[in-house]
Amino acid sequence: MSDTDPLVVFTPSGKRGRFAVGTPILTAARALGVDLDSVCGGRGICSKCQVAPQFGEFSKHGVTSAEDALSEWNAVEERYRAKRGMIDGRRLGCQATVQGDVVVDVPPESQVHKQVVRKRAEAREIVMDPATRLYYVEVAEPDMEHPSGDLERLQEALAAQWGLAHAVGDLRTLQMLQPALREGGWKVTVAVHHGDGLGPARIIQVWPGFHEGSIYGAAFDVGSTTVACHLCDLVTGEVLASSGLMNPQIRFGEDLMSRVSYAMMNPGGAAAMTKAVREAANALIGQVAAEARVDREEIVEAVFVGNPVMHHLLLGIDPKELGWAPFALATNSALNFWSTEIGMEMHPNARIYILPCIAGHVGADAAAVALSEGPNVSDDLVLVVDVGTNAEILLGDRRQVLACSSPTGPAFEGAQISAGQRAAPGAIEKVEIDPATKEPRFRVIGCELWSDDPGFAAALGREGVTGICGSGIIEVIAEMRLAGVIDEDGAIGSAAAAGTGRCVPDGRTHAYLLHETPEGRRILVTQADVRAIQLAKAALYAGARLLMDRRGVKKVDRVILAGAFGAHISPKHAMVLGMIPDCPLEKVSSAGNAAGTGARIALLNSAARREIESVVRRIEKVETATEPRFQEHFVNAIAVPHKTDPFPVLNGVVTLPAVAFGGSGDEEGGRRRRRARG
Amino acid sequence: MSDTDPLVVFTPSGKRGRFAVGTPILTAARALGVDLDSVCGGRGICSKCQVAPQFGEFSKHGVTSAEDALSEWNAVEERYRAKRGMIDGRRLGCQATVQGDVVVDVPPESQVHKQVVRKRAEAREIVMDPATRLYYVEVAEPDMEHPSGDLERLQEALAAQWGLAHAVGDLRTLQMLQPALREGGWKVTVAVHHGDGLGPARIIQVWPGFHEGSIYGAAFDVGSTTVACHLCDLVTGEVLASSGLMNPQIRFGEDLMSRVSYAMMNPGGAAAMTKAVREAANALIGQVAAEARVDREEIVEAVFVGNPVMHHLLLGIDPKELGWAPFALATNSALNFWSTEIGMEMHPNARIYILPCIAGHVGADAAAVALSEGPNVSDDLVLVVDVGTNAEILLGDRRQVLACSSPTGPAFEGAQISAGQRAAPGAIEKVEIDPATKEPRFRVIGCELWSDDPGFAAALGREGVTGICGSGIIEVIAEMRLAGVIDEDGAIGSAAAAGTGRCVPDGRTHAYLLHETPEGRRILVTQADVRAIQLAKAALYAGARLLMDRRGVKKVDRVILAGAFGAHISPKHAMVLGMIPDCPLEKVSSAGNAAGTGARIALLNSAARREIESVVRRIEKVETATEPRFQEHFVNAIAVPHKTDPFPVLNGVVTLPAVAFGGSGDEEGGRRRRRARG
Repeated sequence: MSDTDPLVVFTPSGKRGRFAVGTPILTAARALGVDLDSVCGGRGICSKCQVAPQFGEFSKHGVTSAEDALSEWNAVEERYRAKRGMIDGRRLGCQATVQGDVVVDVPPESQVHKQVVRKRAEAREIVMDPATRLYYVEVAEPDMEHPSGDLERLQEALAAQWGLAHAVGDLRTLQMLQPALREGGWKVTVAVHHGDGLGPARIIQVWPGFHEGSIYGAAFDVGSTTVACHLCDLVTGEVLASSGLMNPQIRFGEDLMSRVSYAMMNPGGAAAMTKAVREAANALIGQVAAEARVDREEIVEAVFVGNPVMHHLLLGIDPKELGWAPFALATNSALNFWSTEIGMEMHPNARIYILPCIAGHVGADAAAVALSEGPNVSDDLVLVVDVGTNAEILLGDRRQVLACSSPTGPAFEGAQISAGQRAAPGAIEKVEIDPATKEPRFRVIGCELWSDDPGFAAALGREGVTGICGSGIIEVIAEMRLAGVIDEDGAIGSAAAAGTGRCVPDGRTHAYLLHETPEGRRILVTQADVRAIQLAKAALYAGARLLMDRRGVKKVDRVILAGAFGAHISPKHAMVLGMIPDCPLEKVSSAGNAAGTGARIALLNSAARREIESVVRRIEKVETATEPRFQEHFVNAIAVPHKTDPFPVLNGVVTLPAVAFGGSGDEEGGRRRRRARG
Repeated sequence: MSDTDPLVVFTPSGKRGRFAVGTPILTAARALGVDLDSVCGGRGICSKCQVAPQFGEFSKHGVTSAEDALSEWNAVEERYRAKRGMIDGRRLGCQATVQGDVVVDVPPESQVHKQVVRKRAEAREIVMDPATRLYYVEVAEPDMEHPSGDLERLQEALAAQWGLAHAVGDLRTLQMLQPALREGGWKVTVAVHHGDGLGPARIIQVWPGFHEGSIYGAAFDVGSTTVACHLCDLVTGEVLASSGLMNPQIRFGEDLMSRVSYAMMNPGGAAAMTKAVREAANALIGQVAAEARVDREEIVEAVFVGNPVMHHLLLGIDPKELGWAPFALATNSALNFWSTEIGMEMHPNARIYILPCIAGHVGADAAAVALSEGPNVSDDLVLVVDVGTNAEILLGDRRQVLACSSPTGPAFEGAQISAGQRAAPGAIEKVEIDPATKEPRFRVIGCELWSDDPGFAAALGREGVTGICGSGIIEVIAEMRLAGVIDEDGAIGSAAAAGTGRCVPDGRTHAYLLHETPEGRRILVTQADVRAIQLAKAALYAGARLLMDRRGVKKVDRVILAGAFGAHISPKHAMVLGMIPDCPLEKVSSAGNAAGTGARIALLNSAARREIESVVRRIEKVETATEPRFQEHFVNAIAVPHKTDPFPVLNGVVTLPAVAFGGSGDEEGGRRRRRARG
């Protein structure tokens, strides 16, 4: 190029260069390293390289584009517009050539590394960088004089036309290759998987001619209770469908340890649970594929995350070693393998990626949470808590990330609670108790009204009020403490509450009467319920404190509550209860299903896989079981709230320090009150 | 080591060095790079490092070993001898330590890279260098404080104790790993497959403790007619069992092209043939495993060779592209994959290796022949002919190797011949015709006597004389030519034969009456039979000549006849017929099943895989179908013998030039006459 050649400026990148008249915009973009997509390599077939020339305005780049700065609209573009439609003002980058100085905008949908829109403002952005991509190639025909295989000529074409050195083809590729090449007249579209870490690129699928469709990937979060799946478009990054199913392993045991016990005590028990969870995953693939009108064989990649027991069972590894010290994982590396190896019914050449487990109790789900919430890229010190049967806890910032698991047991999920139940219509999820009268008001799932609102009984579903879900349990016990119904030690029946009629005898102890149904069925919070929650929250708190000790800090800057439970919990009540270390309330946020989000990030961005593998290797693992300080924190944390933080208790009523809750706590409560369950 | 340290000399390598008193012999051997085996790494468990100290004799190495040159026989050795037995005079290299100057012999069975004994004196030696090997390792126990996976600790142990960097473990390895480690008390034996070319080493199997057994491999030769399998010990190299089965694809078509046609014309036809050949291979695995008393799951590796159609069908690739020009292979590279990918019932982690195909008609079987017969390492120019439905022909020496395939058709295999049959009891395999009387004598398979020997009729099997096998056809037609029953053009009924009573009318032509059974059934050689053999041999000869033209030579130094047919053919008659270019008769040898041998070499020596891959890439492929010179040679070669060599024909009787046949031809004939078949 010479100084007199036209200047081409690309936005939004700002990259610029001079190019000879007649240079296609796509060629200019590639020369400058501008992120402009193309599947067909500039043959005017794929239309992925659409650009928006900026005509007639004085640009901040100092270039004024004239209408004739690009070559005229041509027949290829006209054919494409007639067939598929094209936004006015758009041009095909491979057809429009440089004629004069021009500013060319690359719209987001034409960028390979486009950003995926996320709902949460504070969430990390996801940039598209999928492991599997499409390439259109023209393959040399066979020549008897120089015999070579069809695969080898395809490999040469990929190398010459796309710079893809030695993409390997396995037996399934060989089986489909010859008909596709001939049907496509030696032009094919191939899906290439870009390697498992350092592994070779692999040819996954070969379509005759130009493949008009997209390719899809599935992100799975295998939880003890629920298996969830998101079907994503691997080109746009869009979530096309999401679905969840009860983990059918529940019939072998409600919680993780009972499933491990089942595997230990029943020959074939682990295999039966492996079969069950794989069937559930396959059922989900069917659901999301049907919802998105995608053939399940078009799903060419999948990512799975799960806690160590789910991870091992999915892979067909007996989880019994996770049931006793030293809680040895079969592997703590990320895994890559074929979908057929775990019987997934998707593309038979689909590659599966499994995030690494961090430690025997801190699984690939925690790694996915780390990927989603990025404590390793946080400037301030963030505590991430994924609450479940085991709480998985991360503490860290750019300098260092620590992780541990704390044996909270299933109380937070409503198990071991007398009126506990799953989050389902009829379950009490929000509670307030009047500090003076000790009278409660509450809301149930599936009903917008509070229990003291007019028409509440009529607005209830047919099932009425059925029990208390996990987040409801947290709220009622925190409210009981705030109202003085329980004392610091968790005992029900303080002097203040004794005469209220809500504090009723229950065997040798007292219980708090939260509700009595028209049929006379009582929903009680018993002393045993309070004790169970005290133990669970003390374990959670002690785990977090242990990490803080190891880091040498007395407080954290932010708290993120992850997981489905974390999404519904009220931060204020969690803090009253002493579940989490003190932190300004506005600094406590919910990340929703962060593990599922992490799986989706790994699906859409292969660099994120390398990142999390590296982060997991560097995470400092802290084992709670062998750490004496854990026991100490645990014992101190049984009180409501815990004794280790300075928390004033006056007249049997906990006074919330203004700095922690202030007005925003009330506002938050009020806002939540009016908001339907998310 | 210092100059005053004892001198240790190893035989047969002659390697020597000085070592401090107390150095174990195994350590000394390793320091010097002496080929001394050890699976347990010197822990006194495996006994693979047995050595034979040479005491009390003045050695050619200038060292006189005293009885006390090694440490005393110890308890580990005594325990091993009591348990397993040990040859007198042997010591365990890991237990015996250097005390004075000593000569130590490493017997062949203690060498890793031992030579495998081969029956043929001229055959290339096979040096053991198997891809899959055993390693005994001690693995660190899990530590809660530093959580890492069992796999990762095994990988660290392999790296530290054997220098094996990052051997990968797949899902099946992970599934077996944890119980094996615990059952073995953190000591395990692992079978590691050393990579597919540049691929990673792979952990194939994990046994608790020291694995007393060996590991096995299977070498398959998938022919159009027969599928053969050799079961080999991957430590000793020994062939433990061999077996063959009719290729069940025969029911879809006798020859290759009829099977390709079947695939073209029947939907699912290729898949049915794939299923059939895989079932045959699995049946063979069962047979050889049973014969060798080996569990089929102990077979951890297999190698397959076959012509391109068999290669594609085994792999589940539709072979139809091999049925028409340009005869495009799906791939011309060597392949590596898991046994499960082609449904082989052996160790589920067994790796399969397939030699590369050379061209559309020159398959992995020809590559295996090249590996076995080594034209690329020959000092003189050698022609290797593998006779079958297609003749695969190699011509070369160290400088260059050429290859082609020639469409001989199935006549050499007895198909398309009126009295033709498979080589089975009752088939005529050797023939002589008296040049004066035109009377024949012959021998049949399964009977030691010639047909004119007394008691021949009684010695015949129940089936009597049933037909003529492939090698018998060659002999009878060559003898007919030598006796003047046919002329140069192949016409039966020359003047000399007309009146003999052996030359009988057969439609519009004549036939030669070879035999009439007591029941009056006549075994004839018809004019059509002669024509079929003329066409077949002309094709074979023309292919060889084409390669010679390309190489620019008029003659070759040696001819090797490969294949089952080549093993039974009489070189003299092949030359009379003009099947092969002229060459001194003593320079014509039979290599037996060279393709099967090549498969076995690839199984036992992984360096041979790299070698043949490189040789195949460098082989110059010559396509007969498009080469005008091929047609020319073919037409000239239809005469018996061919017209392109100076071959005197006098008085209607071919006179064999003394240089070609001389006395040795007769001796050879006499020797063959007295020798039982095969």
